[in-house]
Amino acid sequence: MSQSRDFLSQRALGVKQSAVRDVFDIAMDPNLVSLAGGNPWLSGLPLDELGKTAGELVSQHGTESLQYGPGQGLEPMRQAACTVMAGDGIPDADPELVVITPGSQAAIDTACRAFANPGDVVVVEDPTFVGALTSFNTWELDAVAAGTDEHGLIPAELDATLELMEAEGRRVAFLYTIPSFANPSGALLPEDRRDEIARICAKHGVLIVEDNPYGQIAFDGRPLAPIAAKHRDQVVYLGTMSKIFSPGVRIGWALVPAALKREFYLSAESAFIHASTHGQMLSTAFVDHFDWQGHVREVSGLYKERAEALWDAVKEHWDPAVEFIRPQGGFFLWGSLPEGADTLELMTEGIKAGAVFVPGAAFTPVEGTHSTLRLAFSFVEAEKLVEGVKRLAPVVNEAVARTR
Amino acid sequence: MSQSRDFLSQRALGVKQSAVRDVFDIAMDPNLVSLAGGNPWLSGLPLDELGKTAGELVSQHGTESLQYGPGQGLEPMRQAACTVMAGDGIPDADPELVVITPGSQAAIDTACRAFANPGDVVVVEDPTFVGALTSFNTWELDAVAAGTDEHGLIPAELDATLELMEAEGRRVAFLYTIPSFANPSGALLPEDRRDEIARICAKHGVLIVEDNPYGQIAFDGRPLAPIAAKHRDQVVYLGTMSKIFSPGVRIGWALVPAALKREFYLSAESAFIHASTHGQMLSTAFVDHFDWQGHVREVSGLYKERAEALWDAVKEHWDPAVEFIRPQGGFFLWGSLPEGADTLELMTEGIKAGAVFVPGAAFTPVEGTHSTLRLAFSFVEAEKLVEGVKRLAPVVNEAVARTR
Repeated sequence: MSQSRDFLSQRALGVKQSAVRDVFDIAMDPNLVSLAGGNPWLSGLPLDELGKTAGELVSQHGTESLQYGPGQGLEPMRQAACTVMAGDGIPDADPELVVITPGSQAAIDTACRAFANPGDVVVVEDPTFVGALTSFNTWELDAVAAGTDEHGLIPAELDATLELMEAEGRRVAFLYTIPSFANPSGALLPEDRRDEIARICAKHGVLIVEDNPYGQIAFDGRPLAPIAAKHRDQVVYLGTMSKIFSPGVRIGWALVPAALKREFYLSAESAFIHASTHGQMLSTAFVDHFDWQGHVREVSGLYKERAEALWDAVKEHWDPAVEFIRPQGGFFLWGSLPEGADTLELMTEGIKAGAVFVPGAAFTPVEGTHSTLRLAFSFVEAEKLVEGVKRLAPVVNEAVARTR
Repeated sequence: MSQSRDFLSQRALGVKQSAVRDVFDIAMDPNLVSLAGGNPWLSGLPLDELGKTAGELVSQHGTESLQYGPGQGLEPMRQAACTVMAGDGIPDADPELVVITPGSQAAIDTACRAFANPGDVVVVEDPTFVGALTSFNTWELDAVAAGTDEHGLIPAELDATLELMEAEGRRVAFLYTIPSFANPSGALLPEDRRDEIARICAKHGVLIVEDNPYGQIAFDGRPLAPIAAKHRDQVVYLGTMSKIFSPGVRIGWALVPAALKREFYLSAESAFIHASTHGQMLSTAFVDHFDWQGHVREVSGLYKERAEALWDAVKEHWDPAVEFIRPQGGFFLWGSLPEGADTLELMTEGIKAGAVFVPGAAFTPVEGTHSTLRLAFSFVEAEKLVEGVKRLAPVVNEAVARTR
C-alpha cells in the first residue's frame, strides 16, 4: 500500500493552511467576544409562522419537498430569486437564466468549474472574500490582486492589471468582485466606477462574476444597482438568501448570460445535482408570503446601530493611527494598522485578551505580513462589541506603538 | 467584447452532451410511463410527525437550524450517519472521520477535488453511475472501464486494468465502485470479490471510493458488509439519506481515512461551506426519533414487489433474447439487447410508444453504440410498470428482430 498522502491531489496538498482558518472554530469559545464570524442575526425572523410553513411543507407537501427536484432549481424558487434581485436593483431578471445553488459559495465554485482552466488568472479586489480565494485555490487558479481604496476596486488599477495579464499572455477567467459592502472591506463601489469597470472588462473581453450577498443591507435603505443591472451579457450575478433570510437553508443562485446558461447549469448539476428542495420551498415561501423586505429593513437598522457602536468604540479606545473604512452597509468593519504590524500575531494575543477578529492575511492572495483586520458586527450586540474593542485595545495599541 | 463562448472552460466545453441527458426532463411528461428516474417512494414516510419535527426545528430552534453550522457537519448528524452506516454493515464508524455533504453527488465531486489531478485515471465498473461520470468529466479525468458480469466488477479485470495503467505510467486517482445493487446494473458484488478488490487495490496502491446509496435496500433484509467495513484505511465510503429517507434534504456524507480527513473536509468546504443545517437536523431527527429501519424494511418490501412485477412483465412481453440481471435490491433492472441494437434510438421510439427508459450510453465511458438499458422500478406502481413494459414491447422486440 502506498502512503496515504500519495492519494491527495496536488490541489489538496496545496490548499493554504494557516492559523487563520482555525479562527472560526476558536471564535465559538463562549468566553471570547467574537468579532470574527459573519453570521446574520436571525432572532428577528417570524419563527413561529415560518415553523408552521416549514412543517406544512413536509406534512402536506412532503412527497414534493422531500423529493428530487430539477437541476436548475424549482421554478417558483427561480421566480423568488428574481423578486429578491429586483430588490437588489435588477428589476428584469429572467427566471429561465437563474440557476439555484446550495449557497453562493457553490455558485462561486461553479463559476470556476464553468469558466476557468487550471492555471488561469482570476482578478480580485484586494482584500476579497476568503471563501472565494479557497475555491480559486482548489481549482488551481492564480488569484491576482487589483488595487482598491476605501471605495473599492480602482478602475485604473483593474485596467493596468488586465493589460499586464494580456502582455504576459495569461488567460483571465473572470473578475471576481463584491461591489456592495464587500466582505471583508465593507467598501461600497460608487456608481461611476461600476460602469467604468464593466467598460474595462468589455474592452479586455473579461467576464465579471459579481457577488452581491450584502447589497440590500444598505444602512440608508437604498442599494446601488449592481453592475449586472446594465451589463447583463458580461456578468454572472450571484445572489443568496443567506444574509436576508437564512444561511442554514443554503440557497443561493446565479443569474447567467443566456449564452452561458446551459454549461453553467450542467456544471452545477455535476457538483451537487440540485439544492435542497425543502430549503428552496421554504425560501420561496419567505419571499412570497412573508414581509421579507420588512425583515431586511429591520436587520439593516440593527446592523447600522451595531456598526455605529463598533465605530465609536474603536475611535474611543484604539490608537488613532488605525485607519478604518466606515461601513454604509453590510456586516464588516475593516481596519488597517500602520505598516509593520502583523495582525496574524495580534490575533493570538487578542485571543489571550479575550476577543477574536480575523486577520487580513485571510483575505488576500498576496503573501507576506499584513497589518489589516476584519471586525464583524452583524451577530454581536452593541455592548459586547464595545467590550471586545476594549479587550483588544491594549494589544492593538501596543502593536501600533511598536511601529513608531 | 469577445464571443461569450470564449468565457467557457475547456471542461465546460467538453461536457458530454447527448439525447440521454434530456431523458430525465422528458420523463416528467405525465402521458409517459417513466421507467427512467431513480426516485425513492416517499408516501410511506410518517409525514405528519416529520412535519411537526420540521416545524419545531424552525419555530423552537430556528436561530440554530437556519444559521451557519460547522464545515464538517453538525456533530449529531455525523453521529446519525454512523448509526445509518452501522445498518449498512460498518458498526464502528467514527463521527470524527465523517464529513457531511449536500448529497453524495457532492461527496463524489469532493473526492475528485481532493484526490484527482487533471488527466488522472478513475477506474470504474462498466456500467456505472451517470452522475459520477459527469463529475469525472468536469474534473478532466479519464474514466477507464473495468469489466463486469452479473455479479459486478470482475477482480481479474480490475487487476489487469490497474496493471495496464501502471505500464502506461498513468496515475490512478481512485477506483469508483458501487458494490451493492449498483446504479444502473443492480448487481450485487459477492463477499469474496469485495475482499479481492480491496487486496488488488492495496497491491497497486489505489484508493477506493465506495458509493453505497442502496446497500440497505436489500430484498432479503440482509445487506452485505461494505468493502470499507474491513478495509477502512484504503476506502472513502459514501453514504446518503436519499434512498432511505429523502433526496430533497440533500444530505450525504463521506467516511474518510484519518490521514485524508483534513484535506477532504477543506475540499468540501471550499465547494459549498456546509450542507443545509435544517436538512441535517431533520435527517438527524429521522434517525434518532423515528423508526427509520422500519421505513427501510417497508420500502424495501415495496421495491421488491415492484422489481418482481417488472421482472415478470419483461419475461412475458419482451423477446427472450433480452438478458437481464435479476435485482436482489436497489432501484434498477438492467437489460442487454443483442449486440447491434442501439438503445439510444430505441429511447426515441419508446417515447413515441408512451414509455421512457434510460439507454445504456448514459452509464459508460465507452464511446459507440450500446445495446443496454436501465429500467427503474422504485417510483412506479406495479400496474404502471407492466403497462410501460407492454408499451415498449413492440419497439424492443422489433429491434431484437432486426439483429437476427
